[in-house]
Amino acid sequence: MPNGKTVNKLPVAVTMGCPAGVGPEIVLKAADDQNLQVPVLVIGDSSILKAVAARLNLSQIKIKSWKPDQPVLSEKNLIYCLDVTRLQPRQIKPGHPDSLTGRSSFEYITKAVELCRAGLALGIATAPISKTGLRLAGIDYPGHTEILAHLTGTEDYLMMMTGKRLKVTLSTIHIPIREITRHLNIDRVFRTIKLTWQTLRKDFAVSEPVIGVCGLNPHAGEGGMFGDEEEKIITPACILAQKEGIKTLGPLPPDTIFYHASKGAFDAVVCQYHDQGLIPFKLLHFEDGVNVTCGLPIVRTSVAHGTAYDISWMGQANYHSMKAAIELASFIAKNRSKFQG
Amino acid sequence: MPNGKTVNKLPVAVTMGCPAGVGPEIVLKAADDQNLQVPVLVIGDSSILKAVAARLNLSQIKIKSWKPDQPVLSEKNLIYCLDVTRLQPRQIKPGHPDSLTGRSSFEYITKAVELCRAGLALGIATAPISKTGLRLAGIDYPGHTEILAHLTGTEDYLMMMTGKRLKVTLSTIHIPIREITRHLNIDRVFRTIKLTWQTLRKDFAVSEPVIGVCGLNPHAGEGGMFGDEEEKIITPACILAQKEGIKTLGPLPPDTIFYHASKGAFDAVVCQYHDQGLIPFKLLHFEDGVNVTCGLPIVRTSVAHGTAYDISWMGQANYHSMKAAIELASFIAKNRSKFQG
Repeated sequence: MPNGKTVNKLPVAVTMGCPAGVGPEIVLKAADDQNLQVPVLVIGDSSILKAVAARLNLSQIKIKSWKPDQPVLSEKNLIYCLDVTRLQPRQIKPGHPDSLTGRSSFEYITKAVELCRAGLALGIATAPISKTGLRLAGIDYPGHTEILAHLTGTEDYLMMMTGKRLKVTLSTIHIPIREITRHLNIDRVFRTIKLTWQTLRKDFAVSEPVIGVCGLNPHAGEGGMFGDEEEKIITPACILAQKEGIKTLGPLPPDTIFYHASKGAFDAVVCQYHDQGLIPFKLLHFEDGVNVTCGLPIVRTSVAHGTAYDISWMGQANYHSMKAAIELASFIAKNRSKFQG
Repeated sequence: MPNGKTVNKLPVAVTMGCPAGVGPEIVLKAADDQNLQVPVLVIGDSSILKAVAARLNLSQIKIKSWKPDQPVLSEKNLIYCLDVTRLQPRQIKPGHPDSLTGRSSFEYITKAVELCRAGLALGIATAPISKTGLRLAGIDYPGHTEILAHLTGTEDYLMMMTGKRLKVTLSTIHIPIREITRHLNIDRVFRTIKLTWQTLRKDFAVSEPVIGVCGLNPHAGEGGMFGDEEEKIITPACILAQKEGIKTLGPLPPDTIFYHASKGAFDAVVCQYHDQGLIPFKLLHFEDGVNVTCGLPIVRTSVAHGTAYDISWMGQANYHSMKAAIELASFIAKNRSKFQG
């Protein structure tokens, strides 16, 4: 992590995501947004950025290849890009991931992590990648978050979806509904609560976070009538957290907790599975949500949407989530540099 | 069902719900709302209504016991109540359901169904009951909807949660998360789609409804990576519906479908489990949502919230969902009377 002195001058490393998705477009538009106060270094392929800029008539944007010994200047309509895989536009079919795009999107992430570790970037903001592309490239990860955890050797990590009205974290992520119970245990829920709390303090500068914890079942089990995971797993985890001094309320009925959270009752909601958290989050923050990876030694934010292959390279993509992710990476880096533990 | 001629003069039967909950208060306030254009007949106990009115300083409201041979007049500050169980206020501990409140709340429902069948009411709008109270009274139903289905001998019924921005129906309701898959099958999902479509046409006067269907798993299974219920159950059900001429889209990723629905992409969203539908619904319609039972021979709407024992008899309950439920019962009755099949 950079120290307090240099934190304002370093860029956020923005990975270009799947070259066949909306990544190149939203990265270009976000980096070129005149209201963005954060220096950006794109980690991708400038040939692709140039092709997308040409196709979308973004002729005002100049794209400059960047080398690690150069500064990243904030100059109007100038975007710096670290060329990683020398991909050529003719190799890309917009909207169609393949082994090549899967491989490139993976290498952008790897390179961005290297830059952060070398102290050359504040943190990483990632454009969307495709799990299909990764798989076609023989790279077996369920998603971005797991790649970053692996690359940084992090065992205790967590996805937090953040927006102005709601922040959620997930005890389990890419798990079929019928298998969730098998993946839930007291320790896992407790660690989710604890890491959520630590992240709110360290990354979001909330001094005394209040955490709402979802039950798993309808009505949080209704006293055992609709399931017993609340009694056996979630309540004990909440008690453990309370014993560590973490202000924790739960398990609460999943169908009302998010309304109360959106009204300010909780700083974040700990959810037990993917859609329990992402349904309400995307309903409120479809366009401006940001995904933050908690627990990594480097700062990492991401857009909260996917590759949107149906509108790739078409000029229709909304870049507000990408812009918000870049700004949030910078915000978190600043908070971390000031955090007193 | 009443015919077109008399439909405007009949009242909506409003059941008082659990006497120890917020039911009496919201029924009083909704029935007394000067903007309510629908005649109301409360099915409950006037002694309880009077006690709550006195406690909440609603002294302007007169409560009149009603007999089946009397008309229900729309007169300012006058509320008609059919006395069902002769419950006395001293028998009630506000906030605490028991066998007595469970039994009474059940009998209100039974009586309301009788009135509808006798052609004395347009339909039923129900205040919340307590499953705990029912159980203490030895009445074994998971909820209101199942009671009404049983009382009317209805096999094919469905809960639809409705609001201005979102309508959802559920393939499964009060089922623990780990058991959902066991309760899902092609026929059940298909019937949910079909009954949703029929209800939109008949009760909501939508001539060509478009139905969005949720996947079960994260990313709707992501091509089988995160579960196979989409491939094995939900897709075949969608195909069956399409073959019957029902405009059906799905299975779609659960975490984005509600955003699109709230923007008008679908007339309703078919959800596979309780919280999949109720999380987004209550986030948008916590205060004004209405629960409609599809498929019953009688019209039935309900508040979308519970008994709220923490604020019972305190004057703090929001009655907008109750008022909306009464208005919607009247709206549905009118649509049904005009429906051409």
